[in-house]
Parts: sequence; C-alpha cells; structure tokens
Amino acid sequence: MNFSSDTAAPAHPAILEAMVEAGKGPAPSYGSDKWTAAAKDALREVFETDLDIWLVSSGTAANALSLAVLCPNHGAVACHAEAHIERDERGAPEFFTGGAKLSLLPGDHGKIDLAALKARLAANNPSFVHESPLYALSLSNLTECGAAYSAAETKERADLAHAAGLMVHLDGARFANALISTKATPAQLSWKAGADILSFGATKNGSVGCEAIILFGKTRERLPELQARAKRAGHMPPKMRFLGAQMSAYLKDGLWLKLASQANSAARDLSNAMVKAGGRLAHPVDGNEVFCFLPDGAADRLAKAGATFYPWFDGSHRFVCSWATTSAEVADASKAIG
Amino acid sequence: MNFSSDTAAPAHPAILEAMVEAGKGPAPSYGSDKWTAAAKDALREVFETDLDIWLVSSGTAANALSLAVLCPNHGAVACHAEAHIERDERGAPEFFTGGAKLSLLPGDHGKIDLAALKARLAANNPSFVHESPLYALSLSNLTECGAAYSAAETKERADLAHAAGLMVHLDGARFANALISTKATPAQLSWKAGADILSFGATKNGSVGCEAIILFGKTRERLPELQARAKRAGHMPPKMRFLGAQMSAYLKDGLWLKLASQANSAARDLSNAMVKAGGRLAHPVDGNEVFCFLPDGAADRLAKAGATFYPWFDGSHRFVCSWATTSAEVADASKAIG
Amino acid sequence: MNFSSDTAAPAHPAILEAMVEAGKGPAPSYGSDKWTAAAKDALREVFETDLDIWLVSSGTAANALSLAVLCPNHGAVACHAEAHIERDERGAPEFFTGGAKLSLLPGDHGKIDLAALKARLAANNPSFVHESPLYALSLSNLTECGAAYSAAETKERADLAHAAGLMVHLDGARFANALISTKATPAQLSWKAGADILSFGATKNGSVGCEAIILFGKTRERLPELQARAKRAGHMPPKMRFLGAQMSAYLKDGLWLKLASQANSAARDLSNAMVKAGGRLAHPVDGNEVFCFLPDGAADRLAKAGATFYPWFDGSHRFVCSWATTSAEVADASKAIG
Amino acid sequence: MNFSSDTAAPAHPAILEAMVEAGKGPAPSYGSDKWTAAAKDALREVFETDLDIWLVSSGTAANALSLAVLCPNHGAVACHAEAHIERDERGAPEFFTGGAKLSLLPGDHGKIDLAALKARLAANNPSFVHESPLYALSLSNLTECGAAYSAAETKERADLAHAAGLMVHLDGARFANALISTKATPAQLSWKAGADILSFGATKNGSVGCEAIILFGKTRERLPELQARAKRAGHMPPKMRFLGAQMSAYLKDGLWLKLASQANSAARDLSNAMVKAGGRLAHPVDGNEVFCFLPDGAADRLAKAGATFYPWFDGSHRFVCSWATTSAEVADASKAIG
Repeated sequence: MNFSSDTAAPAHPAILEAMVEAGKGPAPSYGSDKWTAAAKDALREVFETDLDIWLVSSGTAANALSLAVLCPNHGAVACHAEAHIERDERGAPEFFTGGAKLSLLPGDHGKIDLAALKARLAANNPSFVHESPLYALSLSNLTECGAAYSAAETKERADLAHAAGLMVHLDGARFANALISTKATPAQLSWKAGADILSFGATKNGSVGCEAIILFGKTRERLPELQARAKRAGHMPPKMRFLGAQMSAYLKDGLWLKLASQANSAARDLSNAMVKAGGRLAHPVDGNEVFCFLPDGAADRLAKAGATFYPWFDGSHRFVCSWATTSAEVADASKAIG
Repeated sequence: MNFSSDTAAPAHPAILEAMVEAGKGPAPSYGSDKWTAAAKDALREVFETDLDIWLVSSGTAANALSLAVLCPNHGAVACHAEAHIERDERGAPEFFTGGAKLSLLPGDHGKIDLAALKARLAANNPSFVHESPLYALSLSNLTECGAAYSAAETKERADLAHAAGLMVHLDGARFANALISTKATPAQLSWKAGADILSFGATKNGSVGCEAIILFGKTRERLPELQARAKRAGHMPPKMRFLGAQMSAYLKDGLWLKLASQANSAARDLSNAMVKAGGRLAHPVDGNEVFCFLPDGAADRLAKAGATFYPWFDGSHRFVCSWATTSAEVADASKAIG
Repeated sequence: MNFSSDTAAPAHPAILEAMVEAGKGPAPSYGSDKWTAAAKDALREVFETDLDIWLVSSGTAANALSLAVLCPNHGAVACHAEAHIERDERGAPEFFTGGAKLSLLPGDHGKIDLAALKARLAANNPSFVHESPLYALSLSNLTECGAAYSAAETKERADLAHAAGLMVHLDGARFANALISTKATPAQLSWKAGADILSFGATKNGSVGCEAIILFGKTRERLPELQARAKRAGHMPPKMRFLGAQMSAYLKDGLWLKLASQANSAARDLSNAMVKAGGRLAHPVDGNEVFCFLPDGAADRLAKAGATFYPWFDGSHRFVCSWATTSAEVADASKAIG
Repeated sequence: MNFSSDTAAPAHPAILEAMVEAGKGPAPSYGSDKWTAAAKDALREVFETDLDIWLVSSGTAANALSLAVLCPNHGAVACHAEAHIERDERGAPEFFTGGAKLSLLPGDHGKIDLAALKARLAANNPSFVHESPLYALSLSNLTECGAAYSAAETKERADLAHAAGLMVHLDGARFANALISTKATPAQLSWKAGADILSFGATKNGSVGCEAIILFGKTRERLPELQARAKRAGHMPPKMRFLGAQMSAYLKDGLWLKLASQANSAARDLSNAMVKAGGRLAHPVDGNEVFCFLPDGAADRLAKAGATFYPWFDGSHRFVCSWATTSAEVADASKAIG
C-alpha cells in the first residue's frame, strides 16, 4: 500500500527491457543514436505535428531548461503559487534562467484563476525598466493538486498569454494522466491549446527516469540554445540512447496511456471509497492523486494497516496511485479507512 | 571496430541486470533507497575511509557540482589548459559556480607542469581584490591525453595546492583506468594523495550513466550544500535507486577493475601494433586511450576497414578502447594499420 | 511643485562643495582615501558602534550586494510583497545572489505582518532539500508606503528572524526620514533592533548618489566577500573619494537629519492640507511621502497648477517631498487641492 | 610625483563645476534629464554618427555590461591574455554574462597577435555543442601595456571577427589617449574600424567617475536589453544627470582631447628621460603610460624623491601620467632617475 508518490513506483518491465536491449552494442553518443531518433519519431506521431525534442532524466531539469529558453534573466515567468517550479525545485528556474523571477498567481485546485491572470497581464509593462516583465506563462497539467485543465481551459489561458506577448510552457510531469481524464488528444492538450514548449513526463508513469522537452512551432528555432544550455547543465548524457530507449518503449503501442489509465482508475476507486467512508475531497480527482480530508481516525488506521501517504499542509492527506497500484492495495486501503 | 569513444560502448549486462532488479517494486525516492545506501557502503570499502557521496548521471554534472562547492563565484579554479572542464563542458563550471574563472596551466600529456603550478600559486594573492583568487586545483586522472598521474605526482600537486590554501578536485571520469596502470589503491590515488572531492566515473567503464561525487574528510561538511545545488540543477532524480543500483553492481566483486583492465589491455595491444607499424605515440598509453601519429595511409586504411576513431587537433589520431573492445577488433585494426 | 520623487530633487550645496574640495589633488584609489576613512569614522560615531562600510552610488546595488552576502543562491529572502527589492529593482537580488528567491509577505502600509511572518518562519524547513529555505529577512524603513517601523516593531521582527536562524537586512533608502518620525537614535533603529546589515541611503536626502552598506557585529566578517562582489559588479569605483566626500558632508554637523526633518515637515504640512480638503490618507505619513485618495478634481487642479506627482496603483496618488521642497510649494499645492 | 595611476588624479574643475550646476534644481530621474540628452548629442557629434548610449560610473561596469549584451552565457569572448577584463575585474564579465568564458590570446604589448586570432577563429566551431563558441572579440585601446592599436590594426582584427560571425567590443578606458597618438578621429578608431560597442572612458582622463557605453549601428537594437541589465546591476542611478553633466563637460570644446594630450606629453617626456638615463622601455609609449626597465638604483632614487609608481610583474616599472601631471613633476622624476 504505497501511496507516497508515483516516483516511488517500480519501472515498467517493458521499459527496463528496452534499456537492456539498447545496451547491447556500440552506439553513437550524445543523442545521435537510433533510439533517440525513434523517440522523436514516436512523439511526432503522438502529437500529430513536427517538433523537436531534448531528453533529460529529471522533471526539474525539463522545466528549468524549458523556462531558460523562454525567459531572459531580466524577465519573469507567471505561474501558480503552488506550482512545482515554485515550491519543489529549490530555485531551479532562477538558476537556469540566471535569475529571472517567478510571478505567482492564485487559483483553486492549482489552476491559475482566469481573472487573476488577466489582471496580472494587464499590469505587465515591458517598457517599464524597473520591474521584470513577463516573458512566459507556465501551466501545470495535472496541477499540483491533481486537477486537470481541459483543452479549452488551457487554450483560454494560453491565448491571453500570447496576446500579451508571452510564450507558454506546459509542465506535463503527469501529462498522460491529464489526457486520460480530459479525453483530449495529446495535440489538443498541448500545441493546439497554445503550448510552445512541453515538459513531457514519463518518470512518474513507469519509466526509470526520462522526460522529453518538446518544442513546438516557432519555439523549435531555439533547439540549439536548448542543447547548449542542457550541455552546460550536465543534461547531455553521453549514453543518451538509454533515454531514447525509455521514451520509445514508453510510447510504443500506447503503453503510456494504458499505464496512466490504470493509475487514474486506482485513484478514482480509492477516492470513491474515501468519500463513501465520510472523507471530503480537497480537489477533483482528475488524475492519479487523491487529496482528501479524512474521517476521524482514518489516517491512523491506514498507517497501521501499512499504507504510506503524506499529510498535506492544508490538513488533508495526499495519496498517489501509480500504474503499479493494485486493486488489492486499493481494497485494503478502503477497508482501513471505513 | 568502434574506437570512437568509451561512451559509445555498450553497458555491461551485470549493470543492466541490477537496474532491472532494482525496478521491480516500490522504493523511497531521492536517494533514500537501499541501492544508494549500498553504493555508499561499497565506496567506503573501496576507498578505505568514511566518505559522503552524491550520484549523478553525467560526468559534466559531477565535475561542475564538485567545483561549485569548492569555489565561490568570485574565485578561480586552476586546471590544465586541455582539461575536460575547460574544453568539453560548454562552460559548466562557470554556470554551476555562478561565474568563477578557470585559470589554465600548461604541461605535457595533460598533466599540470609542476613549475608552472608553483609559479601560479606564488602569484596568487587572495587579498588583491581586483583579481579572482584561486580556491581550488582540479586534476584529471586519466588526463585528457590518456596519461595517468601516479599517486606521488598527484600528491605533489595537491600538497602545493593545500599549502596555498586551495582545495583539490579530482576529475576521475577514467579513474579506474588510472588505477590499473599506476597499480595504486583507490585510497592512494585519491584522498591519501590529497583529493578533497572526486568525480568517480562509471559511465565510460560499462555503466548506463552513473558518476559518484565523493566527498572526503572535511569536505563532507559540504554535503548539504552539494545536495541543494544538485537539486536546483536537476541532478536529484526521484528514482535515484537506478543510479545506486548501477554503482553497486559496478563495484561488486571488483567488476569495475576487471572492466578497466580489459580496456587498458586492448589499448596497450593496439598501441603496440601501431608502434610496430611505424606509428609514433603522442602520449603515454596509461589507460584505455591511444593518441598516435599514424604512418602514412594508415588512417585511410583503418577507416576503409570499418574502424571509427577521431583525428586530433595536433595531427595525431585518438583511439579509445573500452571494456567491450574485443581482441578481434584490435587484431583487425592492427592488420589495417600495418 | 515637484512632488514626483526625492530622486528628482537637487543635491545639497554642501555635498557638492565637498566633492569639489575632494577633487583638488591626487588621492589613493579604490577606497584608500581620507574621505572614505572619514565617512567610516562618522558612521561609527553616528551609530555608536564599530562597523564596516562599503560605499556605492546606487540603492539597488546597496540592497542587492547586502542580500548577496547574507543569502546563497539556493536560499531565499523574506520581504514584503511591495518591497523595493521585489517591485522596483528588475531582479537585482536574484542577479547578485545568483538566483536566490524572494519570499513575499503581506502587511498593511508596507510593514510585514507579524502573524504572517511567524507563520512563514514556522513553515521554513532548511533540511527539506526541495524548497529554498530562508536565509534572511529584509525590512524597509521607511516602507514603500512611506510608513515607519518603530524600533520596537523592527526588533520584534528581527528577533523572530534571528530565532529562526535568519540574518536581517534593513533597506534604509529613507532611513533618515524614519529616524525623524520615530525619534529613535540610529543605533536604536538599526543594530540595536537587530539589523545585521543596513543599506544606509543618502541619495534621496540631498546627495549626488551615495549609499553606505553598513555591516554590524558578526556580519563584519563578510566585508572581504562584500568587496569581492562589489568589485565584480562594477561597484568599486576607482575615485571612491567622491563617495566618501559625499557621505562625510552628508553626516557633518547633522546635516542629514536636518534635511530629513525638512522633508518630513513638508510632507506633514502637505498631508494636513489634503485631509483638510477632504482627502483620505492611504498610509500614515511617517516620512517624506504622502499617499492620498484625493477629493474629486483635485488631481486635475494640481496638475494644472504645475505640480508633478504620480497616480498609485490603488487609486491614491503619491507625493514625495524632499529637503528642497519649499513652504511656497506646499502652500501652492494646498491651494490647488482645496 | 604621483605616477601610481590616472585614477589617482584629481577631477578637472570644469567637470566638477558642471556637476555643481547640474545639482541646482529638480530634474527627471533615471536618464530623462537634459544633461544626459546633451551628452548623447555631444557623443553623436564627436563620433559623426547616430548612436545610443548608457552612462555608468565604472569602467568595469561599462565593459561587463557591453559584453553581456554581445555574448550569451553559453558563449565565449576572445580577448588578450593581459586584458583588463581578464586580469583586473574580478570576474565581472563572467558575472554579468551569467558564466560566459574568456578565451585568451597572446600578442606583444597587449595587442592581440593577428596570427593567433586567425588560428583561434579558424578553430571556432559554433555547431560543436561541447565547447563554448566565440560570440565576441574584445580589444583594448590603449592596451594594458599602454600601446595603441591604429585604426588599421583595429579594423584588421575587427574584420576577421565579423567574418567569423563575432561582434566587436572596444575597451576604451583610455580611448582619448589612443586618439592623440594615432591621430585618428573618434569615428575612425571605433565604428569605422569595426567596433560594435565601445566603453568610452572619461574617469581616467579628468572625470569624477563616468564612462559611456556607446552602441553603434545594429547594436543599437540592444539598448533595451542593456538598460534592463544595467538596472538590475545597480547601474541606473536615479540622479543620472550627474553622469550626463560630467560627460557633457568632458566633451565640451574638446576638453577631453586637451587633457589626454597633456597626459600623453608628460608620459613622452618622462619616457625620454628614462631612456636617456639608460632605461629600456618595455612597450611603446603610445599614451599616458610608461613601462620601463629602469637603470640600477633608479627605482630607489625615485621612491626616495617621493615618486609613487608600481613595479610590474615582468621586472619593469609602470608610471602613469594624467592630465594633471606637471612638467615640474616630470622634471623632478627625470632628475631622480638620471
């Protein structure tokens, strides 16, 4: 009953097997290998458009490198006050950009409030030299609260940002989970909704450690800069084939969507059991995370039964399911709560 | 006949197998797993001393993070003019330190000349505010020219650095290869010779992508800062167990030394064949790299025979052997040269 | 009727005269001159304690350099959401620290709310590697709203910060004005109230361009680092004697307090006239700034009469008096409002 | 007999007087004043072309800000190994660029050797992601050895740089002195010779502290970025009128050229006396600096006579004359040497 994090989950055998296969002979270094090429091809097909990619082993790196090619050191990035880039990355955006600022916005369930975004954009004045102007908007889907932006909600925010001259970054550490619940296509939930650059996560959904930075449209021109920044940040591993192999296996035959679907189902079942037992959900369960104000004593009973999970700062508790969460685990947890 | 780079070599099956095993169940994130703990224990045994470690997937990251905890942004690091940190890391040391300088020193075969080091240290004046003073000396073993510092040579330079108030970093991307040829113990070639921090490479010697930053002695106090810097640089992967598993397997039963020994042997055989055929070695072959001024026509013949290798800027050619280089490959190459 | 800013005010003749005198012969460069020494002596007397100083020509530089010696790049600085370092310095703190974060706190009149500070400090967890921990608290006195912290209010906040392991920076761009209204001594309002480092402004109070970074107590150990950072930021002007001369003249015979007193009086008179005419003060007038919700038509009448001032984002208008504001100007403005 | 530095010289009365005049009434802040406008107009006339400017109080800031708008953090700047930006600015270029590298070139008398430049440019490979490519060439005129590049020598190097895709920065801390000895016009020695951006120094030639960053041609498009970087570096002083007043007075009626001419004459007379007394000049005396291997005992005799000057690292001694060096000082020094 490990609900501590999807990063605590095992790696999927198919992905590990792909790494073993990729390790068998010599191959060109630094991304010139066939697995990385295949990953790019697969992503092109999945996203139904031409694109450029860079593979990294860390979501923090994916986000920070993305922001660094969108925002100069004297600019700012608008994001939700609870965003991972603000709360959980030890200042990585500031480090990679050379000291740009994050400008924090409120909103329920980790989604940026539309009115707050409008007001912030209206106050943005790039010609006022004293204040760091916005260069980018960063959205997270799933949000840090486990909620999903629909394609329309994403587009609404991205359109406002573009109209104000900003670029749009999408932190998709749990992008697959958002796809399942929104029933959108990858294209609809990313570039068609206005994302210029996407941190496309695979680590939390069954990989060993692999995220693709995906550049869409005109942002593709920034690939050389992205590569230079990745290199100097130690994110151009020589044996990149092992990242390529992971991503290829992740996408093959829709494995990624199947895994995300499993995780989402487990979360839905778990949340239903919690509500039935008198719990109150803090946020919509749009993906693989459940934030719940538990009934009295439930947290203790769960812990005693062997479940791992985290108390959240608002008094709720967070439970994260993964592709590997079993129905037995959910059933055991449900029993312990009730 | 792939002599292009040891980073083009396959990963050793035992290391891949360890990753597969590590991927099978849930495990704590961010380095609290048992494989990472085992890696630390194994390194402690190998180096015969207490130590702290941080695992990263890139040699550039290992070097740059190491330097960042030794040198503030207003200081400088002395290194060889041909050092990897100067020539091949796209300014990673400058990025991670926040703009410290590298101060370049000459020396044959990539080894820092002793007289030049003495003169540089004598000119160092930390109280002269206008110039960036030295805070660290970085040595590479193997050097970029494939030569090895003996333990005595290392200690001679480290002692001078320490006497001048500097800390000592050792870039050991090919540390195993240096151990084989110098016949030193890991302790003798590192902390006993004065290294305060070591980039201990495994990637080029059979791993998928794994390097340990090893802190010795008083430098261990800087582990929290190192972790903070690693986190904000995207070098704290959630599923760190896969780095721990690699390092553990790499060290188990002396695998790493066996692999380095194989690579060194292949290089020695290849260099002997080259000399026999009229080639002139540009540098001593102390590890798995051969730099050779080839006899007329040999480069073409090698290429035609299917060998991959690189021309070097001084007119020589570089051939890199790995643990996976076969005697058949060496024989074929030898035939093509002669 | 220039109420646009105290930075638009003239320089005081005594300060200009001191620069002329200082310019007459040769003098050592980089701060080894007698005027800089005299400035330090004068500050020591004014603050009734031993201290170290560094003179710069810009308040932004004074603040950012101060923060850079208090907070590493992987840390954070708590400050008011309206603080000058957050709103008006184009990311200077992020630049000088190498990417540290500002953590924003609310509070009326630009003063950090005590409960909010306590909650923020309670949530601070330096051992949680994922989030940037607080290393410093930055207070502004006067605040950006023209209010003054009393010595007791300052100490209350500084004590909380110290108890949580933070250092305390005081942005005293208008420190003289705060002294006048709080009736505190310089010592009482700075180091005795817990300030470890003070940006002591003179520019807005009659100087050409001069601010002293003052290090108190144990922070004095960081002078060499401060000097190194100042040098590499272009804030070690060779002819520093002209900064020393300004500061010496500024402090001589209490000139600085006389000037601040004049500015405060003008602001008080102006604010009284506004209130009498039906205006509503947005903030207490503790110094030389008046923020007022003007009666209908008053803004137009003032502008027509030739007054310069700024609309504020909350609907009020800001009027800044200086040492050079005349009673005629105040009278004219009062007439135009009423 | 102060030959220690031209930064130890007094400020010219006309420049101080201009500051006093500028200080008399209110004026807009941050460069919107009439003195700054006049300085720009005067520079436009002096350089016979349209241009943009930014005034700073420090030569280090002028150089580092200039380089920061020419070179991204993942690039490099070629300069002479003895250049001020490399040797005397505590890593300011690395700080302002966010960690770009300086690539050092040899050459007699502080001038970059043409063959070395060609070789370096030929080795430059912007598409090789592992090494920081050159984005700019920085020349100093006068050089750190007191020699001057002629307009033709400047153009030769700038043309090579441009042909390789680089931008050209000119460190003109002693530009006026170089103009006098080369008999070139300001235009001929700057933009007509290929300079894209110029650090135009006034501090060493009679100002209190004032340097203009001058943007020529297409580089003018980078003014907003330059201003943003200046602001966040604390180099946008509110009372910029005092910089504008200095620069205006410096240029008025050719004062600057008269002052440089005086300084150069004094240096020439002093060097003639040294040679006559058996000294050997280390470098051509093209400006206001004399580097001389003194005859036996001369250094002691000079010191005893009250002269201040510096020993140089190569065994010579450096004597710097200024606009304020008197013929009596030169005569006294000459007598002491002989």
